[in-house]
Amino acid sequence: MSPSEAAAPTPSQAGTRFLAEIHEQPEALERLLERDEDFARVAAAIQERKATTIRMVGHGSSDNATSYGVYAFGLLPRWTALRDSISLVVYYRAELDMSGCTVLALSQSGRTRDVVEYVRRVRERGAFTVAITNDPESELAHEANDVLPLCAGPELAVAATKTYLSTLAALGLLAAHCAGEGDRFVNELRASADLLRTLIPTLEARIGGVAVPFAFAGRMFVVGRGAEYATVREIALKLLETCRVAAEPMTATAFAHGPVAALDSLFPVWAIASDDETLPAVLEAVARARHV
Amino acid sequence: MSPSEAAAPTPSQAGTRFLAEIHEQPEALERLLERDEDFARVAAAIQERKATTIRMVGHGSSDNATSYGVYAFGLLPRWTALRDSISLVVYYRAELDMSGCTVLALSQSGRTRDVVEYVRRVRERGAFTVAITNDPESELAHEANDVLPLCAGPELAVAATKTYLSTLAALGLLAAHCAGEGDRFVNELRASADLLRTLIPTLEARIGGVAVPFAFAGRMFVVGRGAEYATVREIALKLLETCRVAAEPMTATAFAHGPVAALDSLFPVWAIASDDETLPAVLEAVARARHV
Repeated sequence: MSPSEAAAPTPSQAGTRFLAEIHEQPEALERLLERDEDFARVAAAIQERKATTIRMVGHGSSDNATSYGVYAFGLLPRWTALRDSISLVVYYRAELDMSGCTVLALSQSGRTRDVVEYVRRVRERGAFTVAITNDPESELAHEANDVLPLCAGPELAVAATKTYLSTLAALGLLAAHCAGEGDRFVNELRASADLLRTLIPTLEARIGGVAVPFAFAGRMFVVGRGAEYATVREIALKLLETCRVAAEPMTATAFAHGPVAALDSLFPVWAIASDDETLPAVLEAVARARHV
Repeated sequence: MSPSEAAAPTPSQAGTRFLAEIHEQPEALERLLERDEDFARVAAAIQERKATTIRMVGHGSSDNATSYGVYAFGLLPRWTALRDSISLVVYYRAELDMSGCTVLALSQSGRTRDVVEYVRRVRERGAFTVAITNDPESELAHEANDVLPLCAGPELAVAATKTYLSTLAALGLLAAHCAGEGDRFVNELRASADLLRTLIPTLEARIGGVAVPFAFAGRMFVVGRGAEYATVREIALKLLETCRVAAEPMTATAFAHGPVAALDSLFPVWAIASDDETLPAVLEAVARARHV
């Protein structure tokens, strides 16, 4: 029976699945780490081919993860990583020189049609192609030169959770191996899995009270900057897909550059901040939002 | 007197300026074309330095224009053009190798702080830097290796119109010269200016009736694909800045991949379609939106 023939889950079933898969995140991360040797192998192949420009493609949560990849590859091996245009290659058939490029094709299912087609074309044009997918037997995996399996286990909820986190981990781990820092990154990922195991139940207990005032929100901005911009995009997509909130992701600086003018006192803004070099820009944006 | 000391325009004055600057677009385009030799000179300098990876940076409307640049450089000289991360260079100080890269720094005012700082850093790291700005005497223009002036005349409305169009024209014209097709592109831009002169009054007469039903919309999706994705982003930003509509730009394919589930019959979707290779994907997205 194909997924489309299966009965659609009721809203309550969908919520239960969604929450269950959030709880599976630590185990999914640990399963990914068991495949560390695959990441080391692919990193060595990238370096051997001198394919150090990283082109990333995906849709939805996979596309959001590419925003993290820009920083992972920029800060670890100091390579240029870009979210490539699928349209340029697949629809317009632009004849770009892809030698010297690695393509990371991200698809949980491995069945995203235009991502598969993109890989087919750029491989012909000289790119080294790697599928990062939860299904190592998928069409995408077969089309690419190499495969990095997410090992997240079946994902049944429509809104991705564990595969999104595993995709970030996969991008970071590959970038770390490319920079010769794979071992350190493995240890940090393992510590993150432990931390998540403690944090998720704690957050779950506290989050209800925070969520209630937003139950009827129809629109929201989600702002952040730097590596957290991936989180910003993913939160906005989750709000849209699960709560029907028209949530727009934007960088803290883009927000302050114009859209802040659209705010009124009933327009919620969700800010994501990490204690890193981008924190002052995020705090400045939040201060402006509060003074509306 | 600095702009912040000047009296803020009333809403009616702001609307009058905004409309006046829309009407100035054909003249702005023609003034840009008078500087065609500058574009040919910069294109020659890019080729001489073999700086054929194009990194673009800007905020707001300038950032939206970079989405068009990806297609202009991909389809004309067949080079890789990317919207670069300002945070990676300016905040995280990532030490990327920028030799072989041209940087196009886009800022109407030439005073966007982190764009100026970005140019300073990437120039030190070996990039060939070009400022595309409406103020050739600005700090940005002085910081860059070369300058392409937009020649759009003073832009007073807060929501950019003529400088946005002129930025697209500048990116296209530079890409065309890089591909040895500058003369053809000049002729097409001149024809576009003529067409605009006829179209703007016609559109102005018809648009009022279309706009009225949306007067109270609080949220909207704007969808399209390929080269028109720049238009999609710019329309969404205009809706946000001038009408306070939480308008989210997305590609037609990303839309169909998930957010379509957030629609109901009172959720407006604005689709942009061109008669090019991406049309089927846009029509498919529109069909899905209509059947909600």
